[in-house]
Amino acid sequence: MEKVDGRLVRGDQTRRAVLRRSVDIASVDGLEGLSIGRLAADLGISKSGLFAHFGSKEELQLATIRAARRIYADTVVTPAFEVEPGLGRVWALSACWLEYSRQRVFPGGCFFQKVSHEYAGREGAVHDALLEVHWEWMKLLEDVVQAAIDRGELTGDAKQLAFDLNAYYEAANFASLLQGDLAGYDQARQAIRTRLESAVVPGTPTPW
Amino acid sequence: MEKVDGRLVRGDQTRRAVLRRSVDIASVDGLEGLSIGRLAADLGISKSGLFAHFGSKEELQLATIRAARRIYADTVVTPAFEVEPGLGRVWALSACWLEYSRQRVFPGGCFFQKVSHEYAGREGAVHDALLEVHWEWMKLLEDVVQAAIDRGELTGDAKQLAFDLNAYYEAANFASLLQGDLAGYDQARQAIRTRLESAVVPGTPTPW
Repeated sequence: MEKVDGRLVRGDQTRRAVLRRSVDIASVDGLEGLSIGRLAADLGISKSGLFAHFGSKEELQLATIRAARRIYADTVVTPAFEVEPGLGRVWALSACWLEYSRQRVFPGGCFFQKVSHEYAGREGAVHDALLEVHWEWMKLLEDVVQAAIDRGELTGDAKQLAFDLNAYYEAANFASLLQGDLAGYDQARQAIRTRLESAVVPGTPTPW
Repeated sequence: MEKVDGRLVRGDQTRRAVLRRSVDIASVDGLEGLSIGRLAADLGISKSGLFAHFGSKEELQLATIRAARRIYADTVVTPAFEVEPGLGRVWALSACWLEYSRQRVFPGGCFFQKVSHEYAGREGAVHDALLEVHWEWMKLLEDVVQAAIDRGELTGDAKQLAFDLNAYYEAANFASLLQGDLAGYDQARQAIRTRLESAVVPGTPTPW
């Protein structure tokens, strides 16, 4: 068994605890709302201790984005990828996304929708990191659709279908927050189904 | 000719100038970013003068929402309503929405998308005012679609079609801000057309 430095373990635990709190705060109040002072008070840690971990507010914001990306990948992508590539996986990815929003994995709904709208029109490292996650996600969604096209289950343009599907996900998340009800999830589910039905190759078994 | 109190006229001009500036600021930085001190400095007006007009930050925020709603109605709704009810008006309303975003009528893109995401998960008078505008807009969009159904030009559920169309508009606006390019407008235009084509009654002349 490898010998582990106790200070390193505690440091890592602290870092994880800070980031779990910071993704939750940012999903509700945005990344601008993150403050090292507030986090330190919340978690009963000294401000100097937090600075030792993150150095600056911007570093904390960037680490928060990376932590949220991991949670998003674990919640939305990993379970959908247990389904075989093809139409079934497109449907599973859509279902996992809507569940991720509905279950409030982050208390403020989709972390990335909240903070990407906050930083959409700005410049700098935080905007760039969010844009990178956005491209990564849109590429993944497009690849999942393309696999269904390559298998002869869907027809059409993968990039366009990915744009449409993502628009429904975002609209559902936004409606649930603003309206305070679940109606948007049913509307999004119906929209996804109608859109996929319009692209499905006749004879393909459908997962809905 | 009616006698007009010069102070009232000047007061009204000041109010309009303040609100024109405040909708622009809020579209970029959000309604939380509005401050009476900053506006006063920007416009060379005394803080006490501004307080005389708006009383509190919340009253300024609510007046800003009303001013933005008027600009939105003038830019998106009024021109589309010059087109006869039916599929043509659905298409015109969609085109006006995309142009409103693309032309940056507000420098931060769609005012309502920016500030509604900011306040979606909160409570209070500002959230409630934004929810009211949201319902008003969704009802208008649904009515425009319903008129096309009533005229035998479209089939389907008007509420669902309104949800889908609005999702494309919002996705295009968001993409233009985050990505800094215009690709989302073409994708949204294609999505709108595909969605309407799937609902159009055969034989109906199409406006695209």
